[in-house]
Amino acid sequence: MSYKSGRHFLQIPGPTNVPGRILRAMDRPTMDHRGPAFAEMTKEVLSGLKGIFRTEQPVVIYPASGTGAWEAALVNALSPGDRVLMFETGQFATLWQRVAERLGFDAELVPGDWRSGVKPEEVEARLADDGGHAIKAVCAVHNETSTGVTSNIKAIRKAMDRAGGKTGHPALLMVDTISSLASIDYRHDDWGVDVTVAGSQKGLMLPPGLSFNAISEKALKAAETSGFRQSYWRWDDMLEANENGFFPYTPATNLLYGLKESLGMLNEEGLDNVFARHDRLAEATRLAVSAWGLEVLCRNPAEYSSSLTAVLMPDGLDADEFRKLVLERFDMSLGNGLGKIAGKVFRMRHRAASNELLMAGTLFCVEKVLSPFRANSAQVPGAGPFVSA
Amino acid sequence: MSYKSGRHFLQIPGPTNVPGRILRAMDRPTMDHRGPAFAEMTKEVLSGLKGIFRTEQPVVIYPASGTGAWEAALVNALSPGDRVLMFETGQFATLWQRVAERLGFDAELVPGDWRSGVKPEEVEARLADDGGHAIKAVCAVHNETSTGVTSNIKAIRKAMDRAGGKTGHPALLMVDTISSLASIDYRHDDWGVDVTVAGSQKGLMLPPGLSFNAISEKALKAAETSGFRQSYWRWDDMLEANENGFFPYTPATNLLYGLKESLGMLNEEGLDNVFARHDRLAEATRLAVSAWGLEVLCRNPAEYSSSLTAVLMPDGLDADEFRKLVLERFDMSLGNGLGKIAGKVFRMRHRAASNELLMAGTLFCVEKVLSPFRANSAQVPGAGPFVSA
Amino acid sequence: MSYKSGRHFLQIPGPTNVPGRILRAMDRPTMDHRGPAFAEMTKEVLSGLKGIFRTEQPVVIYPASGTGAWEAALVNALSPGDRVLMFETGQFATLWQRVAERLGFDAELVPGDWRSGVKPEEVEARLADDGGHAIKAVCAVHNETSTGVTSNIKAIRKAMDRAGGKTGHPALLMVDTISSLASIDYRHDDWGVDVTVAGSQKGLMLPPGLSFNAISEKALKAAETSGFRQSYWRWDDMLEANENGFFPYTPATNLLYGLKESLGMLNEEGLDNVFARHDRLAEATRLAVSAWGLEVLCRNPAEYSSSLTAVLMPDGLDADEFRKLVLERFDMSLGNGLGKIAGKVFRMRHRAASNELLMAGTLFCVEKVLSPFRANSAQVPGAGPFVSA
Amino acid sequence: MSYKSGRHFLQIPGPTNVPGRILRAMDRPTMDHRGPAFAEMTKEVLSGLKGIFRTEQPVVIYPASGTGAWEAALVNALSPGDRVLMFETGQFATLWQRVAERLGFDAELVPGDWRSGVKPEEVEARLADDGGHAIKAVCAVHNETSTGVTSNIKAIRKAMDRAGGKTGHPALLMVDTISSLASIDYRHDDWGVDVTVAGSQKGLMLPPGLSFNAISEKALKAAETSGFRQSYWRWDDMLEANENGFFPYTPATNLLYGLKESLGMLNEEGLDNVFARHDRLAEATRLAVSAWGLEVLCRNPAEYSSSLTAVLMPDGLDADEFRKLVLERFDMSLGNGLGKIAGKVFRMRHRAASNELLMAGTLFCVEKVLSPFRANSAQVPGAGPFVSA
Repeated sequence: MSYKSGRHFLQIPGPTNVPGRILRAMDRPTMDHRGPAFAEMTKEVLSGLKGIFRTEQPVVIYPASGTGAWEAALVNALSPGDRVLMFETGQFATLWQRVAERLGFDAELVPGDWRSGVKPEEVEARLADDGGHAIKAVCAVHNETSTGVTSNIKAIRKAMDRAGGKTGHPALLMVDTISSLASIDYRHDDWGVDVTVAGSQKGLMLPPGLSFNAISEKALKAAETSGFRQSYWRWDDMLEANENGFFPYTPATNLLYGLKESLGMLNEEGLDNVFARHDRLAEATRLAVSAWGLEVLCRNPAEYSSSLTAVLMPDGLDADEFRKLVLERFDMSLGNGLGKIAGKVFRMRHRAASNELLMAGTLFCVEKVLSPFRANSAQVPGAGPFVSA
Repeated sequence: MSYKSGRHFLQIPGPTNVPGRILRAMDRPTMDHRGPAFAEMTKEVLSGLKGIFRTEQPVVIYPASGTGAWEAALVNALSPGDRVLMFETGQFATLWQRVAERLGFDAELVPGDWRSGVKPEEVEARLADDGGHAIKAVCAVHNETSTGVTSNIKAIRKAMDRAGGKTGHPALLMVDTISSLASIDYRHDDWGVDVTVAGSQKGLMLPPGLSFNAISEKALKAAETSGFRQSYWRWDDMLEANENGFFPYTPATNLLYGLKESLGMLNEEGLDNVFARHDRLAEATRLAVSAWGLEVLCRNPAEYSSSLTAVLMPDGLDADEFRKLVLERFDMSLGNGLGKIAGKVFRMRHRAASNELLMAGTLFCVEKVLSPFRANSAQVPGAGPFVSA
Repeated sequence: MSYKSGRHFLQIPGPTNVPGRILRAMDRPTMDHRGPAFAEMTKEVLSGLKGIFRTEQPVVIYPASGTGAWEAALVNALSPGDRVLMFETGQFATLWQRVAERLGFDAELVPGDWRSGVKPEEVEARLADDGGHAIKAVCAVHNETSTGVTSNIKAIRKAMDRAGGKTGHPALLMVDTISSLASIDYRHDDWGVDVTVAGSQKGLMLPPGLSFNAISEKALKAAETSGFRQSYWRWDDMLEANENGFFPYTPATNLLYGLKESLGMLNEEGLDNVFARHDRLAEATRLAVSAWGLEVLCRNPAEYSSSLTAVLMPDGLDADEFRKLVLERFDMSLGNGLGKIAGKVFRMRHRAASNELLMAGTLFCVEKVLSPFRANSAQVPGAGPFVSA
Repeated sequence: MSYKSGRHFLQIPGPTNVPGRILRAMDRPTMDHRGPAFAEMTKEVLSGLKGIFRTEQPVVIYPASGTGAWEAALVNALSPGDRVLMFETGQFATLWQRVAERLGFDAELVPGDWRSGVKPEEVEARLADDGGHAIKAVCAVHNETSTGVTSNIKAIRKAMDRAGGKTGHPALLMVDTISSLASIDYRHDDWGVDVTVAGSQKGLMLPPGLSFNAISEKALKAAETSGFRQSYWRWDDMLEANENGFFPYTPATNLLYGLKESLGMLNEEGLDNVFARHDRLAEATRLAVSAWGLEVLCRNPAEYSSSLTAVLMPDGLDADEFRKLVLERFDMSLGNGLGKIAGKVFRMRHRAASNELLMAGTLFCVEKVLSPFRANSAQVPGAGPFVSA
């Protein structure tokens, strides 16, 4: 039984449902990417992006998926065979490690339980053991899209600083913010990140197709001696062309229109207000999960994500079966469990074009499909009026 | 405190929030309204509209508001000074009577309490008293947008038939379906309606700007002897031009594009499925109202509207103050009380581009703003988790 | 043989091809037409419209075709049976007279040859003969869309003033500017017009569906004693509601979004620049017509229209056959001959979203189809005025 | 003096002006790229693309610029240090060689005059000299966007086959069709191409942001032993995921919507009709250039491009100054000269969303700005070929 109503509800962690205002901004004639109007737009979005990354340092934009920006971070600042330390916080950390391996890195994936963030003390211990500075980079995923667990980037930086003696360990800190940028508080400069990796289709509310690197001075310096033979991802070409508002190859012009609009929307609301909204919706979601007698995948409240929540299904209930019921009954897509936790969790986004009304509606739909499976639903608090109907 | 999230939620009874699919259908170059492609489109939408009105008789489309279609019904089929019987079911019935008066009709408005539909027995009594057949038309509003009360059109028709002896009373039956067409079950032919008045911005999910008359053979016949000197609303010109897919004057081409898309969407879902969806959402809404300890304006369950629900505010609470709080806190517009009941009710739509998710979210937002005003909210059932948070 | 290229070229006099910018402005969620954001928009467009009509007096907006605005002008300011003087300058003047007749006016249509504008001296003579002031209104079409002939409104006003002795003849001056507003110079106040009738789909570059009356103080005064029983077109209701930014019935919200954008575009270019552009394109068109050895329908150069040009086909060539060839070969729609001159002329627009490139392309396409039909085309090797200039 | 008219005319070789129909197709909610509706769309566009490349072999889609697809072709099928033969037909061939060099290839750029295509006899000679089969790939640009010169790919393949004795030389043939695909006749299979590189923003009429590789069985085989350590561009991952309608990383969903629409438009017109239209417009353009007394950059008529024409400016006239005049006067962007020929040529597109009307208008605008500069313009009174034809 499918209730069609002209509006599918995309409640997966990403891509985000794109606001009409951004869709319309992209629905415009492609302009000459070598002309003066284009250069002006480039400068505006590059400047606006700095505010979002909270950095004074350069940000580059690739016409590519976030996966490309992972690769870009690695091949610009490091050399083949370099040792990099990565942390198995979930599916995307695992995939990033796989990219690193394919690129020829000695990429260690420190095992994790997919329910916790990177442990700063573990970072510190590893680096302290690395007196020879063989480790060239520490790579962490700020917000694991597959688990709804965040890692404390600021604490990781401090751990790295403590580990290396007086001057700190020289490894670069690379951070994936694909599902955290413009979603939860993130500070490229203050937290001492060297390369921040991001994408268009999450907190920036755009369709996929753009990705980003924010680059510290130290990373730029490291890039000068990179041993990689590469071309598309080169920071130097990009930065040189960006200087005048252009790109070294054809940019994804219409997605840039959307980016300009997105930056406008984020600024209108105010980034801190955006974060506060996400925090509020995330907390409401966790309260609902708890009221349902279910468990949030993330173990540590300090690591809860305001970008999305992954919910553990009770034993005997297949999460994908459950998601299918929700889709059929309410025309709403929930996020699936990925990798190790496939079939065991479903995920709900609270980020981006969301609000109280949509979040309450989302929780209602989940609750309705969930109810018959609960042994004693009558006793469960929170049986709202539309639920008991 | 305003929670901006890029998406105002328009929950007033109408205009309906227009689905993106319809907005995009209108976002196309205006075509030559004297060319063959236009004629084909006209024929398609005129044919599609018949299915929505459930009629085999002609439907005409005006580039005008619903108010224009009220006027069109009256000036085509009747003559100045004619006696017409109208029923004060709410604000729109009252406005229609005002239009009739201005046009020079002897338009009696049978008083009502704004909480009930037209009483068929009253229709029967009035017509039975009218042995001389002075009454030329009975005008009823099928679904009062101001009150959320429906009138039983089928029963009114039967009452008219009973009243006039063997052949029935000859008065025409005119019905305003502005907020019922494509929202709740309506049958122009089966129920013996002579002129059905409708508009684009409710069940058809279009922006305002188009309105309609469905016309019985009897009404067409009556039009031949109308004493009105009029031009814009003439049925004869319209029907003659429509024959070949054209209009007697420039039509609102881009709204017609939207109408074509709307008819496509209604057919895809199936009109009966649309009605069932509205019924379901309406019942959920009334259950919520009851759980809140509030009262639905409509007194008689048989007259409940699946198009919208008007809710009485408790004494001492101003509905407009309440609506303002909802707007500020959740960026959602509720319908206001009109005319006699201004400040006393607020209205929620369940029709058109709505679904379980959006309706649950709507009810949640109302409930949240309402909670602090309820004496003993702790005792109230339905305190969902996001409510008690 | 049809050359498809994804872009039909609509070169009829109207509706105008709507700029993408305006289409996108309309592709937005319909807002609550009783809310504060709506009121603000109404005030902005009403104020902007005054600049376009060049008036300090009120302008009202109908959700209706231009035909409705004709009716509105007549039924508000006059009374049934009133004598009105109209001039047969072409098809639309003739249709307006037909509307007047249907509404019960004693509407005289002063015969014309469809190749000349209203003769001010004829106006003067008629009014001078009307010592009893039986004539209540003089109605003129500023720019005849069917013929490409303009009438000198300023001179007509002066003729009326001269005709009536010291105080001038008291008849109202009503002017149809449907295809001249925002296309060629027009001045409601300076020229002493009482009611200006206009529509959305020509110089304002919108889809059809809105129409306008600009109203002088004298016309407003006259409206107070109108004998018409009417409702939809009432100025008084409209003006009263407009005062606060609202409408007496549901407005065509999304077309108003487009109107706001249109006013923005006209102001950006500057109305005088718009007119200069139209003048330039019109002159180029006439030079081309002359180079082709054809004749412009308009006889008097002082009455040439910068909004469109109607071209007489040589004897033996059917204009509609010719237009069909152009459509098939170049996917371009030319305007057809209407009424008396059906099959004898074709019409080309130079107004609105046009420019040198599009106009040159239009003339090229016409020329190409025309060439084989020209007796001595060999002697005129491409002497397109736009080429040799 | 700038003539604004609400429509900038983008007449550069690319990005192409995107048809409204494609812009609107992209103006839709982003869907779940792991759901069944997405998989269905992927399969449809992958199948449709094969028709455009005229291949039965796999085509992969990258969320990246065409530059990325150059890199993809090289790093998948070859190994670092491999010798590749490239031909300096213009700026883009030169840039591709630069990419190859950066990636560590021994990439020879056979010098050229930027006015001719690749000489098959030169290919044959080089390969015949390469008895040891050190050359692993021959790379050619089918249509040089910077010069408007095509290379005969079929003849190059034959030359390669002849060069290597009985079995032909084993080098792979890689072809850049960025500005030829869907613009002029191209046959991946028939012509024996191993890797075809293409982009979205030219003949496919999309905004930039997607690029393509069509891959022969031989190239796929070669990829198995590639010595490159790479990730983003991997064919194997892409092909494996595509099998089920998915992608190995987040695809550019909304550009894929546009691609689906583009394929629909090309099929509606018919690819051969599209090519015939481009041929016709290209010939008209060259006739105009000749009538202006100017020279087409391409020397050899057999190598003329139907995708675009580059025109040599007479000595003493700076092409960029000229283009600036055109932009200011007619709001039209012409393509600039790139690299070696900067300031010496301007370029006009005839491909994609173009037609007779737009092309004639384009030529008119160029002619108008050009006239005053022509020594003996008086003797050539507007003898534009499109005029006298």
